[in-house]
This record gives sequence, C-alpha cells and structure tokens, in this order.
Amino acid sequence: MDPRVHDHAETLVDWSARIESGDNVVLSVAAGAHDLGVAVAEALGERGANVHTTYGSSELSRAYLDAHDGEFDADPAHELALYANADTVLRLGGDTNTAEMADVNPETQRAYAEAREGIREARSDIDWVSTVHPTRSLAQQAGMSIADYREFVYDAVLRDWQSLADEMARMKDVLDAGTEVHIENEGTDLTMRIDGRTAVNSCASVAYDSHNLPSGEVFTAPYATEGHVTFDIPMTVRGKPIRDARFEFADGEVTDIEAAQGEDVLWDIVETDEGSRRLGELGIGMNRGIDRITDNILFDEKMGGTVHLALGRAYDSNHPDGESGNDSAVHVDLITDMRGESRLSVDGETVQEDGRFRWE
Amino acid sequence: MDPRVHDHAETLVDWSARIESGDNVVLSVAAGAHDLGVAVAEALGERGANVHTTYGSSELSRAYLDAHDGEFDADPAHELALYANADTVLRLGGDTNTAEMADVNPETQRAYAEAREGIREARSDIDWVSTVHPTRSLAQQAGMSIADYREFVYDAVLRDWQSLADEMARMKDVLDAGTEVHIENEGTDLTMRIDGRTAVNSCASVAYDSHNLPSGEVFTAPYATEGHVTFDIPMTVRGKPIRDARFEFADGEVTDIEAAQGEDVLWDIVETDEGSRRLGELGIGMNRGIDRITDNILFDEKMGGTVHLALGRAYDSNHPDGESGNDSAVHVDLITDMRGESRLSVDGETVQEDGRFRWE
Repeated sequence: MDPRVHDHAETLVDWSARIESGDNVVLSVAAGAHDLGVAVAEALGERGANVHTTYGSSELSRAYLDAHDGEFDADPAHELALYANADTVLRLGGDTNTAEMADVNPETQRAYAEAREGIREARSDIDWVSTVHPTRSLAQQAGMSIADYREFVYDAVLRDWQSLADEMARMKDVLDAGTEVHIENEGTDLTMRIDGRTAVNSCASVAYDSHNLPSGEVFTAPYATEGHVTFDIPMTVRGKPIRDARFEFADGEVTDIEAAQGEDVLWDIVETDEGSRRLGELGIGMNRGIDRITDNILFDEKMGGTVHLALGRAYDSNHPDGESGNDSAVHVDLITDMRGESRLSVDGETVQEDGRFRWE
Repeated sequence: MDPRVHDHAETLVDWSARIESGDNVVLSVAAGAHDLGVAVAEALGERGANVHTTYGSSELSRAYLDAHDGEFDADPAHELALYANADTVLRLGGDTNTAEMADVNPETQRAYAEAREGIREARSDIDWVSTVHPTRSLAQQAGMSIADYREFVYDAVLRDWQSLADEMARMKDVLDAGTEVHIENEGTDLTMRIDGRTAVNSCASVAYDSHNLPSGEVFTAPYATEGHVTFDIPMTVRGKPIRDARFEFADGEVTDIEAAQGEDVLWDIVETDEGSRRLGELGIGMNRGIDRITDNILFDEKMGGTVHLALGRAYDSNHPDGESGNDSAVHVDLITDMRGESRLSVDGETVQEDGRFRWE
C-alpha cells in the first residue's frame, strides 16, 4: 500500500479527529475508499478506539431511493441511537461514480434528507471529519490521471497543519479586528461588512471547529455587500457548468447576474428564498498544497490565492453564542481567483496582493 | 446484473427475513458482496424498510485487531444502541480472501469476541439472517470456477422454500415423536436419545426460527450417544484439514478419535471443556439443491443425503422454554455421507435409506 495512505489515516485520526482510547467511532467507508479504510482501522486500533464501520455507496443509495415510494419514516431509531451514542464520525469519501445519483428523482432525495434531519443533527452534535480517498472516479472528474490525482490529494492533505493553523491565526486576527473587507481583481470590486462576526480558523481539526480534511481556509459571515464580483474559477453546480459568473450586489443583496455559462442555475439558486439573495460566507483559501482546480469544492475553496463567497446559509460558528446569521435552504460556494492582479484589504490595509499574503 | 442476484435478494427479504414497511434494518455488506447489497437495498426500498448499511471487511478487521493492544472495551454503547433499536440484521457474506485473518493473534480475536458478548446477544435477540454472495474467494475455497460456483450457490438458495419447509415438517414430526435415532453407514453405527427435545425445521426463514440462507436441515439436540461414527465429508476446521475422522462414544461422551488427517485438532476441540465431549446437535441435511461439498459449512451441512453432528453447545430452540441443553464454548459440526449404503432410523423405523427419504 502507498505509504501516504497510512500518513493520511494518521493525520485524520490524530490531527483532525483527536481520537483517544475508548472513543466510540463510526467509520464510514465509501465504496472506493477501502484502502484508506484499512489504514484508518489500523490507526483506530492502535489508539484503542471502538469502531463501527458503515458502508457509503451511491449505488446502494440509488437502488434504495429509486425503489422507495418516497414516504420516509422520520429518523429511524436504530441509526439515531447509533449517532446519539457515538463520539466521532469519520467519513471516508471516494465513491466509484460521481454521477451515480443523476437519475434519482430530486423530490425523493429531498424527502429522504428531510426525514433524516434528526440523524443529521445527532451526527453534527458530535465530532466529525470528512475526507476523501483518491479514487479513479474523482480523478476522472478532475480530468487527471489517477497517479497525478494521488499526488494532488496527498499534497493537499499531508501538510504541516500546526504551522498552517498558526499562519491562519494571523488572518483570523485581521478579520476579527476588522470592519470592512474589500476585494479587487479583474472583474471584481466588492466590499462587505464583517464587524460583529468571528472568523473560523479552519485547519482540518475538530479542535478548531473544522471538519474537512484537507481544509485550509479562514471564513467569516459577511453582510452589507456592495459592488460586483466575478467568479472566474470554473465549477459544476447542481450538475451544470458555471463559467465566469458576474454578480452585482447592492445593500447586501444580489441585484444582477451575468454568466458565460450557468446563468439560469445561478438565478434559480438566488431566488430560492429570502436568504439566498445574500451572502452567508466569505472564505479565504490558504492551503498552498492545493495548486489547481479539480471541480471538487472540498479542495477548490481551500486553494491558496483564491477567495470564495457562498450564497445563502451562514455558519453559527461565525456568530456570538446562541445567535444565528443569514438563514437559507441553500449554501452555494463560488470562487474568484486572486493569483493575478488583485488586492484583498481590510479597513484599507492590504492583507493579500496578487495572491500573496503580506507575511509570505 | 445477473437476474439471480435480484432473486436472491427477494428471497432474503421476503421469505427469509419477512421484512415489512417501517422495519429498521441493519444491512451488513461484505467487501465482495456489493452487487447483492445493491439488489437487497432495492428490495428494502420497495418494502419501505429503513436501512443502515454496515461494511464487513476482514481486511479492516485484521488491521484493527492487529494494531489493538487486546484490552477491548465491553460492548461499545454506539453499536449496542444500534442493534437494540433495530428489528432485523441482514448479513451478506462474501469477502475477498477467506484466509485474511490467518495471522491475527487468536488471543486477540478471543478477547474481542468476549468483549462484544452483549452486542452479540442484542443482535440475536432480533430477527437475523446470514447469506453469502458468490465471490471469487469462496469459489476458490470450493475449488470451482466463479461461473460454476454461481450456479452452485443459486441452486442452493433459489429453492421452492415453502415446499421444502413442508417436506421438512415431516422429518420434524418423526423426530419430535421419536425416542432413539440410529445412524448406520460404512464406518458408522451410532445411536442417540432425542426424547424430550424439539426439532427445528430450518427452512431459511425467521418465521421458522431459521437464520441461514440457504438452509434446509432439521436439527435436534441428542444425548446418551453410543457407538461409533465416521465423518467422511472432508472439512477444514480451525484452518486444518479433517479427513475420515472416526469417533467412539460411550455413555454420551467421546471415548476415542482416529482420523486420517486432523486428529490433534479434533482432540483439542473435544478437550475444551466438559460439554465439548458431548454432542450438541444432530442435523439432517435436506437441501437437494446442494449436490457437492464446497468446504463451507453454511452449505455442506444442508446437503440432502448427509447427516451432521456437532460437538459442544446445543441450541436453546431444541429445549423447552427457559431450559438450555449441553453447554460448551465450542460448537463444531462434522458431516457423514449417507448417499452410499446407509440407514437412518428412528425407534426402529427407517426414515432414510441409501440417502433417500422414505417419502422421496
């Protein structure tokens, strides 16, 4: 086995999930993530954790959902009890076909998700971390060979996370002390208020309230957005390609959208509800191990030298205890590239210029 | 997909497990049983059951156990809660290497099993059925091509189970009314008492207290065994081949063993404890879909024209409510072939001669 699979497993178990002896772990293994599953099982055995292994297969999900009449029982007791009694969920993604759910009725998928709201809550009330094993299917989606894709994934995952966390703490300090963020690049001139909000240092560890491996972003919840922004990083949203989408904002709300591709999808999203016209997240990518776009949001939004904004729902973690921010049924991330001529400034002070942070 | 995979799934869900809408099902999918998993997921969706899918991989188990210090927590709460709140467990066997656990310390395996006694009980307190998907690894163990092995498995599994259940009911009636069973073939002249015991019609359905698919045997719990028996069906027990094992019994206990191969393993088993010197089970194979030995006890012991005896633990289901039979840490099945010159009689009346039941 590639020794990096073991390194990935150790990073997940120790840095990300902080597993200790006696922890009750639910280990979810995607159909293509078997090898990482073996390595994580070994690491969990070494730590003395208790493991229950689940199987994540979109082929099974599709078969089940397609056959079901769509009237789902709310929060089946056995699964709810599993998560209510667990300490940590480790989710190893990496399925065998990213398009497997393409022909499942969206109504059925929505009904299934809604019926499992309590299970989702139980799962997010405990420690959880999502990562992916580099599979051929994900390599294909990224337009890369599997060998090249493995390099890419392990470059992103096997970082000196403590050092990155320390660097990101500087960014967090700037945002926490700041009132207004200004983003400028070709096609973008956008300001947002961020005062009263707390930035999250998302460094791929539950100890920092960060739940993705890889991570490597600092994010907050902006408001009072004014100006325009062009999302020039190509993405797939709801199965459709989005290219060069230019958004206009006034008084915190979207007033216009133009895109080379995917304009109708973006309008659909924006018109979902009251909150989907506003931003829920401003994220600053700081993972320099990610140096290319692979059409996988888990990686793309963390890339050093990019900034992403999400339409819709804001994270509670950016707000004072007990308070929530922008509410919406959607949370859709879009990314702008700062590696050309660009500037990111807070209260008039430059934090990043042409994709380089001032401390780099 | 081979349409028989769907037939297998339907048989499992409907005949064996009697799944109904709203049932909370734990579906355990072995690493090589993905295709059967998809078909079962579809059937469960159609029935409106709620599914939690677990992953059964001996590679993960080996990695975990090998790395663990061997001091296991008793009955981890998350897994215990899962089974305590489930209605049915469907276990789809069929791993990728039947020898995967060969190098795991037996002490560790024993300690792990002992620590999970409560989970095992919770799982057996609800409906459960075990079956296997025909994998290349099981074909290899059987010394067969995968194509030929698939034919073998589906011949065994896709029976007219109601008709076989009706036939087996006749055998059960004979045993329930009988006092003494007499088995004779070349190398065997053995008598056992069976009065006071209730035979189980094991026809692959929880409705009959039968938990294997395929099944097709009627079994009871014998005592006061006298005479000798030769187990001429070749088997692997504890990883060692057993060939032509001849046991002598007096006053219900083993007094001598001779075997062409595996004699020491058999002595080890017999000397485990008090109960391992006695028989815990007499089983009469009645599945005519199984016509060859494949070194897999799930199939071999059900073969029509064979009789098996188990050293050690008896099943509660053969005893009056609340009573238990022979107690032992072991339960090891051994098989004798009745398809040559042979006779199985109860209280002097012939039930089977030369491998044919009197009603066939």
